[in-house]
Amino acid sequence: MGMIGGGKDAFIGAIHRYAFNMDGLIEMLCGALSINPEIAKDSGKSLFLPEDRIYLNYEEMMEKESKMPEDKRIDFVTIVTPNFAHFAPAMAALDHGFNVVIEKPITFTLDEAKKLKKKVEETGLTLCLTHTYSGYPMVKQAKAMVRDGAFGKIRKVWVEYPQGWLSKLTEREGNAQAAWRTDPKKSGKSGCMGDIGTHAAHLAEYITDLKITQLCADLNVMVEGRALDDDGNVLLKFENGAAGVLMASQVAAGEENGISIRVYGEKGGLEWHQHEPNTLLVKWLDQPTQILRAGANYPNLSSFARSNCRTPGGHPEGYLEAFANIYHNFALTLMSKLSNSQPTPEMLDFPTVEDGIRGMAFIDNVVESSKSEKKWTQHTL
Amino acid sequence: MGMIGGGKDAFIGAIHRYAFNMDGLIEMLCGALSINPEIAKDSGKSLFLPEDRIYLNYEEMMEKESKMPEDKRIDFVTIVTPNFAHFAPAMAALDHGFNVVIEKPITFTLDEAKKLKKKVEETGLTLCLTHTYSGYPMVKQAKAMVRDGAFGKIRKVWVEYPQGWLSKLTEREGNAQAAWRTDPKKSGKSGCMGDIGTHAAHLAEYITDLKITQLCADLNVMVEGRALDDDGNVLLKFENGAAGVLMASQVAAGEENGISIRVYGEKGGLEWHQHEPNTLLVKWLDQPTQILRAGANYPNLSSFARSNCRTPGGHPEGYLEAFANIYHNFALTLMSKLSNSQPTPEMLDFPTVEDGIRGMAFIDNVVESSKSEKKWTQHTL
Amino acid sequence: MGMIGGGKDAFIGAIHRYAFNMDGLIEMLCGALSINPEIAKDSGKSLFLPEDRIYLNYEEMMEKESKMPEDKRIDFVTIVTPNFAHFAPAMAALDHGFNVVIEKPITFTLDEAKKLKKKVEETGLTLCLTHTYSGYPMVKQAKAMVRDGAFGKIRKVWVEYPQGWLSKLTEREGNAQAAWRTDPKKSGKSGCMGDIGTHAAHLAEYITDLKITQLCADLNVMVEGRALDDDGNVLLKFENGAAGVLMASQVAAGEENGISIRVYGEKGGLEWHQHEPNTLLVKWLDQPTQILRAGANYPNLSSFARSNCRTPGGHPEGYLEAFANIYHNFALTLMSKLSNSQPTPEMLDFPTVEDGIRGMAFIDNVVESSKSEKKWTQHTL
Amino acid sequence: MGMIGGGKDAFIGAIHRYAFNMDGLIEMLCGALSINPEIAKDSGKSLFLPEDRIYLNYEEMMEKESKMPEDKRIDFVTIVTPNFAHFAPAMAALDHGFNVVIEKPITFTLDEAKKLKKKVEETGLTLCLTHTYSGYPMVKQAKAMVRDGAFGKIRKVWVEYPQGWLSKLTEREGNAQAAWRTDPKKSGKSGCMGDIGTHAAHLAEYITDLKITQLCADLNVMVEGRALDDDGNVLLKFENGAAGVLMASQVAAGEENGISIRVYGEKGGLEWHQHEPNTLLVKWLDQPTQILRAGANYPNLSSFARSNCRTPGGHPEGYLEAFANIYHNFALTLMSKLSNSQPTPEMLDFPTVEDGIRGMAFIDNVVESSKSEKKWTQHTL
Repeated sequence: MGMIGGGKDAFIGAIHRYAFNMDGLIEMLCGALSINPEIAKDSGKSLFLPEDRIYLNYEEMMEKESKMPEDKRIDFVTIVTPNFAHFAPAMAALDHGFNVVIEKPITFTLDEAKKLKKKVEETGLTLCLTHTYSGYPMVKQAKAMVRDGAFGKIRKVWVEYPQGWLSKLTEREGNAQAAWRTDPKKSGKSGCMGDIGTHAAHLAEYITDLKITQLCADLNVMVEGRALDDDGNVLLKFENGAAGVLMASQVAAGEENGISIRVYGEKGGLEWHQHEPNTLLVKWLDQPTQILRAGANYPNLSSFARSNCRTPGGHPEGYLEAFANIYHNFALTLMSKLSNSQPTPEMLDFPTVEDGIRGMAFIDNVVESSKSEKKWTQHTL
Repeated sequence: MGMIGGGKDAFIGAIHRYAFNMDGLIEMLCGALSINPEIAKDSGKSLFLPEDRIYLNYEEMMEKESKMPEDKRIDFVTIVTPNFAHFAPAMAALDHGFNVVIEKPITFTLDEAKKLKKKVEETGLTLCLTHTYSGYPMVKQAKAMVRDGAFGKIRKVWVEYPQGWLSKLTEREGNAQAAWRTDPKKSGKSGCMGDIGTHAAHLAEYITDLKITQLCADLNVMVEGRALDDDGNVLLKFENGAAGVLMASQVAAGEENGISIRVYGEKGGLEWHQHEPNTLLVKWLDQPTQILRAGANYPNLSSFARSNCRTPGGHPEGYLEAFANIYHNFALTLMSKLSNSQPTPEMLDFPTVEDGIRGMAFIDNVVESSKSEKKWTQHTL
Repeated sequence: MGMIGGGKDAFIGAIHRYAFNMDGLIEMLCGALSINPEIAKDSGKSLFLPEDRIYLNYEEMMEKESKMPEDKRIDFVTIVTPNFAHFAPAMAALDHGFNVVIEKPITFTLDEAKKLKKKVEETGLTLCLTHTYSGYPMVKQAKAMVRDGAFGKIRKVWVEYPQGWLSKLTEREGNAQAAWRTDPKKSGKSGCMGDIGTHAAHLAEYITDLKITQLCADLNVMVEGRALDDDGNVLLKFENGAAGVLMASQVAAGEENGISIRVYGEKGGLEWHQHEPNTLLVKWLDQPTQILRAGANYPNLSSFARSNCRTPGGHPEGYLEAFANIYHNFALTLMSKLSNSQPTPEMLDFPTVEDGIRGMAFIDNVVESSKSEKKWTQHTL
Repeated sequence: MGMIGGGKDAFIGAIHRYAFNMDGLIEMLCGALSINPEIAKDSGKSLFLPEDRIYLNYEEMMEKESKMPEDKRIDFVTIVTPNFAHFAPAMAALDHGFNVVIEKPITFTLDEAKKLKKKVEETGLTLCLTHTYSGYPMVKQAKAMVRDGAFGKIRKVWVEYPQGWLSKLTEREGNAQAAWRTDPKKSGKSGCMGDIGTHAAHLAEYITDLKITQLCADLNVMVEGRALDDDGNVLLKFENGAAGVLMASQVAAGEENGISIRVYGEKGGLEWHQHEPNTLLVKWLDQPTQILRAGANYPNLSSFARSNCRTPGGHPEGYLEAFANIYHNFALTLMSKLSNSQPTPEMLDFPTVEDGIRGMAFIDNVVESSKSEKKWTQHTL
């Protein structure tokens, strides 16, 4: 594979590398790692890339890599540039016959996301969106239990993603991460909701297998001088009538990266926290709550949870492993397609361009709702 | 003191008795414990009341007790009847010169609450409303830290109260508690929000010392056939511009009585859960989270937390002790007034008729908001 | 009832009063609250005792109370003096026909404890020893599950009681509690093991229904200048061959009162912590761990757990309620005996003179073992 | 690098591969993956090894690899065979000039371990022992705080490692892992203590920087028919006079892999659990307990903790990352040595042959102590 963006000091590029290295299935062969030529070269060298496959821009990479002999050529690219620079390289990659892994949000605008979807369909290639949290085994277990009807009809969803790192005007203090994420030109029309609210919305829809149909948003700029929302609360309605709340904040002082979710149905409920991701609490009417653990050998642990664990119960796996699961399933799907066999449902269990479109629409719709005096805004694509 | 309501099998009457017995300051001398004469008599006997002070209705109790010699006469009454039967005995008690403890919600309607306030002011007597959760020492510590500016300006409040006991149509299965609490004639115009949402709203205002000024509510009847809301999500705005979410549910299957709150300011935040009430998590920008514990001997534990603990750190105190703190402070206030001295701020730290009025207005306003197509409803009294 | 010891500023006397007040079954009628006459009188007044029943010593109290008419006379005395002053008033009380509640350790020496047992048997009266921790409902649930064979044969017991309050030479800093508890003349031949190790040993035997038969102790004085052990680790053997460890420390800096226990059998295990006493973790081979909660309405919660809860699940009960359970069961037993009916097993579930003897022998044997070069010392009475 | 052992279906071989792959610093170039030629070949292929570097035994691998040109040759071997087959390939590797990573316990006997040490010293090569738990960042933080005197003199150490997977006679039910680990011919003279007790002992000495000097062990075979101990409790004395307890069990039914440790000094204490490895609880006399978190940006987080985290606070890292840290530090040390620079203390922070010798002596001494009637056995090497 080849990487676009993700040079030295980029946060998420390094995370992707830990993730795809872990299982030994994927090898990084080339990169266009920065728009700054010096950084691009230095970064490539420090990653042990051959000099002739360290590119200075993605166009060059596409052109040269697509002409390589098949056994040397990369199978896919990973795009880890800031949001505004996702669309063009993704289209180019698909046009040159490469599958694509793309960091979320998928594009800068909903319109771009729709064009990308069309291109994916035309080319028959595979696009994977790294909504990391759906890669955790106990999130997959949660989804499996809901799907199997363990909780009956779902009535209530509480999803939240509190962070505290933007409690001050960090973007003016030389924090590069903060600078681009709070800049509408680089990040898009929403800050907090685009960056982490979309993760929360994806997690809720992923686990419940229910689409959000209406929302009522209250987005806030809590730190004076900031250009984009850094906090938001959203009431949700799901297609089956379930009610929900989505809370995301980057000014929850003292919080780290606390995405968590609770889902309640007629017969029971579930609770999951990224803080302790190998545990899924499962609650019942009139029976004790159960602590389900990743890697355990209960008879009823789902195949989706099992196939996304590397170790037996009690060996904590974390964020990088969840990220690696996204890559692992994507890679197995590609290998399966390359060998003309049908990927299993477990292999196909990674976010796609459809999830990307829903994420972009979510951003559009919460921003619109927040400005509206009406209570409910339809969550249309 | 004397009790109105709270005969055998009543849930909350027994709780009040544990609470006022605990500290040995309050003695139950009489009661009108049920409108059913048999139950009234039996209940009185089993509580070791003298036969001549077991009354069959509150009017009789008022009349006879008010004529007792001062050294035998009760100082106050506790009213633990269902919501619709709070107002009349409370007015009667004040009219006969008795101080009043009343279970929340204070009355059936906002209008009654306002009349009660007027009566309290006219008589100069003391009314105490048992919003239990404000009796926990670490809730008081939270309030003290916010008041002292430890967290700077408050930006965000998340308060929730999930229960699961009404996940089925329990009111049709012979559960007396469920029957009256879901009956609009006995409970009022809201079920879940009136019963537990008001506790959550009180807790949020108590800790932050900020008034809720606007709200946007989504109340739901999740169990088919139920007459009142059993679930609700409410967006909040506070007087200083802070944003909030209040979630309350009685269909969160598998949850017990999980009231909890998180508050975030510019410099840090706090987290408290009734589940483990002796712990207050205090979070900071760039410093480790601290685990504050009730009864501990830290130099900076507030006098409000200290004076509401009975044991040293590590001896868990619970719901009954929190309840007892409400009574304890109320009793100390009465004793102080009776001896013509000024109660301390710590003694006066119990909910009053003002809190009752805010609670009734909260019920009115969330119900109105839930029916409205407008996003925001003013939280006026 | 009447109280011996427990004047103003005594820690445990106040605890006993919270505990026996709580349920409204027990009334304090008299007391010999201090050997200091001023304190005795002041304490009696502040507890609203009638002046003629405030005694200056227990002998006077015994004599006068035993001559009262039956309907005014106390039924039992509670002895909350320091350890060295338990035996004499307990013997006197039994001799005068009063039942006895006694703070642990039961006496100063094993020999005294044996004499007390003989006296109890002779008089047919009831003696209750306040090993508080066996009063928690989830401890009783643990015992019930072990007894019912849920875990199969017990193999392993880990019990611990860490405190940190004696990490410095507190006894020289004016701490009265520390002063007598570290003084061999008042406390006995062991400090930490006598004070809290005995609680841990009792808890282990109570839950498992197995007797400790051998022990290997390492007692330490960790703070220079202290006269008695402030720390200890003990290997245990139980009568059925199970192995165990008992750890107790008063120099575990930063710990509060963290008694906890884990028990493992062939089929599963259990875990309980006083810190969060309403929860019992129950673990299984190849099934998820369960979180059992006090007051919950699971079909299989034992009658011993149910009858020792005052509130439904989710209303945390704590140390004072556990203490109150000891008194409650003792009072129900007395009432049952007074009415010539047979107390139920649930009523009889409080520690007795037998537990007191085992505790005194435990102190003797760990002290002997700690001095011995032999690995194992028999735990004989 | 090249791997010896670790073919298909071997548990720990796969773990090592996840670990050394993660950071992109180490490439697996060859292997002698099984003594079964078919498995060796299949395993090599599935790991994408070139066919000519898939060896059928370690002798062949040593011989051929040592003759490779320097730029193709491996720098080190990893030995992940069962315990009895560690020594010979390790000696061979050192003899052929390769550095060595070796799974613990280092050898089958203490004598072998001493010979290995001599060889390491003679060759000047580097040997790394994978005591994984010392690779966690918050374990390193714990060690740093103890070393910096944050807690004053250490008085008490509680370390435990409960597992439940051998609660039944699993070794007779076709579990290959259980079979060799309970077989004295493959595992050595101790089961539970050799397998996991050594990890606990290492963790205690690593964090406290104190040597265990005496021990008193009670090893048990709890499952009838088992050939080696599956449970043990050990009293410890440390060189500075601190007391300790080490508990390890493989019959703690329902436990997973619960290694945890608590250490107490004059001024405070610490608590760490593998279950939630990114958290270190730090306890103080008279100040609130602090929750230290891996990856956080507190000013006082040690450089040893920082340099062993890949992600910011709130992105949980786990067992594989801890394992990867061992490899990462080892690799940085090798790279540093190859470039003739001095490795930093942070790089050198991985277990060595010295730790291996202490582990082998621990096994010998606990087994001897368990058989002895004397209380204390010297922990000599």
